[in-house]
Amino acid sequence: MRGANMTRKIGVIGMGNVGATVAHYIVANGFADELVLIDKREEKVQADALDFEDAMANLTAHTDITVNDYSALKDADVIISAVGNIKLQDNDNDDRFAELPFTREAVRDVASQIKASGFNGKIVVITNPVDVITSIYQQVTGLPKKHVIGTGTLLDSARMKRAVAQRLHIDPRSVDGYSLGEHGNSQFTAWSTVRVLGKPITEIATEKHLNLEELDDEARRGGYTVFYGKKYTNYGVATAAVRLANVIMSDAQTELPVSNYREELGTYLSYPAIVGRDGIQEQVQLELTDEELEKLNISATTIKTKFAESQA
Amino acid sequence: MRGANMTRKIGVIGMGNVGATVAHYIVANGFADELVLIDKREEKVQADALDFEDAMANLTAHTDITVNDYSALKDADVIISAVGNIKLQDNDNDDRFAELPFTREAVRDVASQIKASGFNGKIVVITNPVDVITSIYQQVTGLPKKHVIGTGTLLDSARMKRAVAQRLHIDPRSVDGYSLGEHGNSQFTAWSTVRVLGKPITEIATEKHLNLEELDDEARRGGYTVFYGKKYTNYGVATAAVRLANVIMSDAQTELPVSNYREELGTYLSYPAIVGRDGIQEQVQLELTDEELEKLNISATTIKTKFAESQA
Amino acid sequence: MRGANMTRKIGVIGMGNVGATVAHYIVANGFADELVLIDKREEKVQADALDFEDAMANLTAHTDITVNDYSALKDADVIISAVGNIKLQDNDNDDRFAELPFTREAVRDVASQIKASGFNGKIVVITNPVDVITSIYQQVTGLPKKHVIGTGTLLDSARMKRAVAQRLHIDPRSVDGYSLGEHGNSQFTAWSTVRVLGKPITEIATEKHLNLEELDDEARRGGYTVFYGKKYTNYGVATAAVRLANVIMSDAQTELPVSNYREELGTYLSYPAIVGRDGIQEQVQLELTDEELEKLNISATTIKTKFAESQA
Amino acid sequence: MRGANMTRKIGVIGMGNVGATVAHYIVANGFADELVLIDKREEKVQADALDFEDAMANLTAHTDITVNDYSALKDADVIISAVGNIKLQDNDNDDRFAELPFTREAVRDVASQIKASGFNGKIVVITNPVDVITSIYQQVTGLPKKHVIGTGTLLDSARMKRAVAQRLHIDPRSVDGYSLGEHGNSQFTAWSTVRVLGKPITEIATEKHLNLEELDDEARRGGYTVFYGKKYTNYGVATAAVRLANVIMSDAQTELPVSNYREELGTYLSYPAIVGRDGIQEQVQLELTDEELEKLNISATTIKTKFAESQA
Repeated sequence: MRGANMTRKIGVIGMGNVGATVAHYIVANGFADELVLIDKREEKVQADALDFEDAMANLTAHTDITVNDYSALKDADVIISAVGNIKLQDNDNDDRFAELPFTREAVRDVASQIKASGFNGKIVVITNPVDVITSIYQQVTGLPKKHVIGTGTLLDSARMKRAVAQRLHIDPRSVDGYSLGEHGNSQFTAWSTVRVLGKPITEIATEKHLNLEELDDEARRGGYTVFYGKKYTNYGVATAAVRLANVIMSDAQTELPVSNYREELGTYLSYPAIVGRDGIQEQVQLELTDEELEKLNISATTIKTKFAESQA
Repeated sequence: MRGANMTRKIGVIGMGNVGATVAHYIVANGFADELVLIDKREEKVQADALDFEDAMANLTAHTDITVNDYSALKDADVIISAVGNIKLQDNDNDDRFAELPFTREAVRDVASQIKASGFNGKIVVITNPVDVITSIYQQVTGLPKKHVIGTGTLLDSARMKRAVAQRLHIDPRSVDGYSLGEHGNSQFTAWSTVRVLGKPITEIATEKHLNLEELDDEARRGGYTVFYGKKYTNYGVATAAVRLANVIMSDAQTELPVSNYREELGTYLSYPAIVGRDGIQEQVQLELTDEELEKLNISATTIKTKFAESQA
Repeated sequence: MRGANMTRKIGVIGMGNVGATVAHYIVANGFADELVLIDKREEKVQADALDFEDAMANLTAHTDITVNDYSALKDADVIISAVGNIKLQDNDNDDRFAELPFTREAVRDVASQIKASGFNGKIVVITNPVDVITSIYQQVTGLPKKHVIGTGTLLDSARMKRAVAQRLHIDPRSVDGYSLGEHGNSQFTAWSTVRVLGKPITEIATEKHLNLEELDDEARRGGYTVFYGKKYTNYGVATAAVRLANVIMSDAQTELPVSNYREELGTYLSYPAIVGRDGIQEQVQLELTDEELEKLNISATTIKTKFAESQA
Repeated sequence: MRGANMTRKIGVIGMGNVGATVAHYIVANGFADELVLIDKREEKVQADALDFEDAMANLTAHTDITVNDYSALKDADVIISAVGNIKLQDNDNDDRFAELPFTREAVRDVASQIKASGFNGKIVVITNPVDVITSIYQQVTGLPKKHVIGTGTLLDSARMKRAVAQRLHIDPRSVDGYSLGEHGNSQFTAWSTVRVLGKPITEIATEKHLNLEELDDEARRGGYTVFYGKKYTNYGVATAAVRLANVIMSDAQTELPVSNYREELGTYLSYPAIVGRDGIQEQVQLELTDEELEKLNISATTIKTKFAESQA
C-alpha cells in the first residue's frame, strides 16, 4: 500500500517510563506518520500500542503503529533508544554508570538488530550512561559518528535554565547557555556561556546576589529530586529526545548541547553542535575558561575509561 | 502579579499514571496557562511538577504549575479528577466497582476541599467507577449537575471506533456512533447509532462479514488487554479527559458520549450530550432499539444500586 | 546534505490568496519539512517566501523553503495546486466555469512541468472549476486517477456543517454528512446522509423547524458572502486542502468528500472516499435517494460537458 | 450562557492583510477560545469571519467569533491592533511615518472605543509607525504604560536572525540578539548583543568573513523586498504579534525586544523586556557600546519628535 515516498517515520526502542512517554508525545502531536515500537516485554509494548490507538479517535493526527518488527526500522528517519532497566532508567542516581552492566548487553543486541534491518537514518540515544551507550550504538551499527547522537546535557541544560529562570522569575527559554560534558556526575554548567537579561550571568549573579554554585547544584539535584520522588525521570528527558528528533527530521540546523563525538577529546560527550538532517552538521567551538576546560577534560576521561571498560 | 483576567486554568487531582499523563499532555501542548496539581503523595507530585518544568526549555508553550494548593482551584476553569488507587486506577478489571471502597472516601475528601476552595467551574471525572464517582462529586460539591461530567464511554466509544476501524482499514475518526451506559461491565455499543462508509454498520457488517458481537467484545477486551499488559491504562483515557476539558474551555458545543445526569433514568450514565462552556448544554435523544433500551436500563439500575450502597 | 530518507515535502503552486494561505498554514504548523513554492510572479513568491522566513524565529517548527524550482518537486509527497486567476480564484461566483478559459492553459503548463520533474506523489487540486481541472491534471501528468484528488465539496460540506451548526448552536464537527457533486452550481447537500444530535437531520428538521432548502442555500450562499465581502475566498478552502494533504501524508484512511474519479459516472466529482497514502484507497457507496441520484447525474453531466469543451 | 470564568479571549482590530493573517493564525491553532474581530469595512470583516467558520469543520480547535462589537472587548485578555491603511500597512517603506496621517485619527477613534468598552487587559500594537501609535493607544486608553506594547523590533530581530542564519546555514532560532530602537529607519542591530555558534558574532564575523553592515542592511532590506514583491508584509509581523499575545496570556516571562516605554529615554521604543501576564514585567538593561547608545538616542529623538507632531 505504501509507495516509494515515505514521510516521517520514527522507531522507539524500550517501552519503559521514558520510551512510553516519548511515544505518547509523538502520537499526541502527530510528529511521526509511522511509529515502530520495540520492547522485549511483548505484553507491555502491545498494551501501550493499543492504548495509543484507543487515544486516536480523540486526537487530531493519525499515526500508524507497528510493534516489535525490527525490519520496519529499515526506512525510519530516526530511532530513539530508550532501552534500559526500567527501575534504573535515567536514574539520575549517584552514578549513572551503575546501569552500565544492566544495559550494555541489551544495547549491543538492539544495535545489531538495527544494523541487520538495513537502517541508515539517525539514532537518538537516551539510554544511560548516555555517552558510553551512544559510543556503543555507533560502534555496533557502524553508522557515521555524526548520525548517532545522545540527548546528553540537553536535559541538564534545560534543568539549569529552569533553576536560573525560577530564581529570576523569567522564562527558562530566556536563559541561554550550556551544561557540558558527561550526562552524569562529572557534568558542569559552563557559566561562561550562560547569558540572561541581556548580560553574562556572572554579572547578573553579582547584581542579583545569585550563588552560581548553588544553582549548578540545584540543576543537578533537580534530577535527584525527580528520581527520589517517583523512582524514575521521564518527562524532561523525553521532551529533549523528541525535540532532537524533530530538529533532525525538519533539518532545522539548531544549536543544541548533545552528546556528539569530539575528535580532539577522543570521545562522545555533550558539547553544542548544529543539528540537522545530516545529524551533527557542524561542531561549535566555545571559548571556555581554563577551569571549564579542565572540567571538560575530566569528564572526557571519565567517559573514555568507562567506554574502555565496557569493551572488556 | 495576576490581574482580574484569567486565562486557561486547569486542576488535576491525582498524580498516578492517569493524572500524570493528563498533566503531561496539557503541558506539552500548552492547553492551559495555569495548572494546579494535587496529590497526597507530596514527593510524587513535586517530582512530576519538577519534571514538567525540566521539559519546558525544550517545549513551545509556557505553563505555570502550582502544587498541592486547593485554594488555587478557586478560579480554575476545569478540574480533572484522576484520583484513584494507583494499582487499580482505570483497571478495566472484571469489575470497576471493586475500586469503590478504595476511592469513595478519598473522593469525598477531595470534593469537600474543592467545595471549600470556592471553585465554581466544571469537573471532569476519570476516577472509577466513573458514573458513581461523578455522582459523588456532584453531591458533595453541590455544583449544578450539568457542571460535573464523567469521561464515561468517551473512551469506550474510542475503543469501539478503533476496533471497527482496524477491521475495515479506515481511520477511527471515520467511524460514528456510541458506546452507552456504565463505563463498566454493563456498557454496550449501541450499534443502531454506528455508521461507517456512508451506511449503518449493520449493513456494512453484512456486506463485509463483520461479526458485531465480536467487535463489541474486542472494544471491551481492549481495556483488558491494555490493563493486563501493563497493569493500568492511561493514554486512551487521559486523551479523552483532556479533549473533554478543551471542549468545555473553548465552548465548542461538541456532541460527546460522556457520563451526564439523565433525569428519566435517575442517574449519571454515558449518553451523548452537547458539551460547551456551560457543561452539558443539551442532552441528545437517540432512537435506540428496544434491546438497546433494555441494556441501558440495566446499566442505569446497576449504577443506581452501587451509588445507593456508596451512601451507606 | 540530504540522505535518501526524505521526510514531509509539499509543493504549493500558485501564490495567490489561496496558495499563500495554504503555505502559511503549513509553515506555521510545521506540517512539512520542505516546502516548494511556485508562481510565475517571481517577485510575489520570493516576497512570500521571505515573509515566511521572517516568521520563523517566532515559530516553533522549521521549514525549508525552495522557490520556483520544478525539479524540487520530484520527491515531494504532495503537490497542492492553487493556480488561478487571482481575482477569480475560488470565486464562488455564479459560475466557477467562468474561470476555465483563464486557468486551463496555465494548468496544462504546470502539469507538464510537474510531469517533467519526475514527480510521482499525490496531487491535491484547489484550482477551479476544480472537477475539470483535476481531470486535466490527471490527464496531463498521467498519474493514476487515485493519486490526483480535488478538494471539491470538502469545503462545501464544511459550509453546510457550519450552517446547520449555527442554527442548532452546536459544533460543526458534530454534524455528519456530505455535499456532493460538482464544486459549483450543480452541487447539492445529500440530506439523506446528514445526521445530527443522534438522528437523521430530516427528523431534527421537523422537531426544530429547520428549513433544509434554506440551509442548503445558506451553505452555498456562504461562498458568495465571503466572495462579495472580500473578492476572494481563502481560509476555508486552504484549510480543507491542507487537511487533505495531511490525511494523505499520515496515511490516515479518513472518509472525506473529495473530487475523485467515479467510474460509473465517467468523471471526477465529489463523493466520499477513504483517503490515505495511496490517495483514494476505497470509494464509499452511499444510499442516496432517487432525487439525490438525479442531482448527482446532472452534476456529472455538467462536469463531463465542460471537460469535453476543455479538450477542444 | 457564559459563567464568570473566561478563558482565552483576543480582539483583533483591522482586517487588512495583517489583521486577517493574525486572526487566521489564532483560529487555525486554537490560541483563543473567543475572538472579536473589528473593522469599519463591515462586509470584509463579515466575509473573513464566515471564511474562518467555513474552515472550522476541518480544524481541530473551536473558536467563538464575534464581529464588530466593541462591548465584547470588555473582558478580552489581549487586543491586537492591526488598524491601518491597507495599502500602506506595515509598508516597510522608506518611511513608516508616511502612514501617520492616515492612521492617527483612526487609532484615536479605536482607542476611545476600547476605553469605553471597559477593557482592562493588554494591547499589542502592530499599526505603524508602531512606536508612536503605541504611545497614542496608551495616551487615549489611559491604561498603564506596561500594558500597552508594540511589536516593534521583534519582527526586525527575526529578520536579522534570518539574515545571519542564512549566511551561516543555521536555524534563525540559534541566533541570539536584538535590533533596537524605532521600528523604522532609525532602527539598528545592536551587534554587541548578538551571539551565534557559541561566540559573539563580532568574532564569528572575523572567522567566517561576514560583513555585519551588509547583514544589517539585509535584515532591513528584507522588509522592503517583501513589500515591493507584494505591496504589503504580513506573515512575519503577524507571527510576532501572536507570539507576543501568547507570551502575555500564558504569563511566560519571556525576554522579547518589543516597543515599551523607557523612562530614561522618555518614549516608547524597542528594547528587550521580560513580558508576562502583567505586560512589561521587567525592563532589561543591556550593555551597549557607545555607538549603539548614540543610535538608540537618535531613534528615541526621532520617535519623540513624531509623537509631539501627532499631538498637534
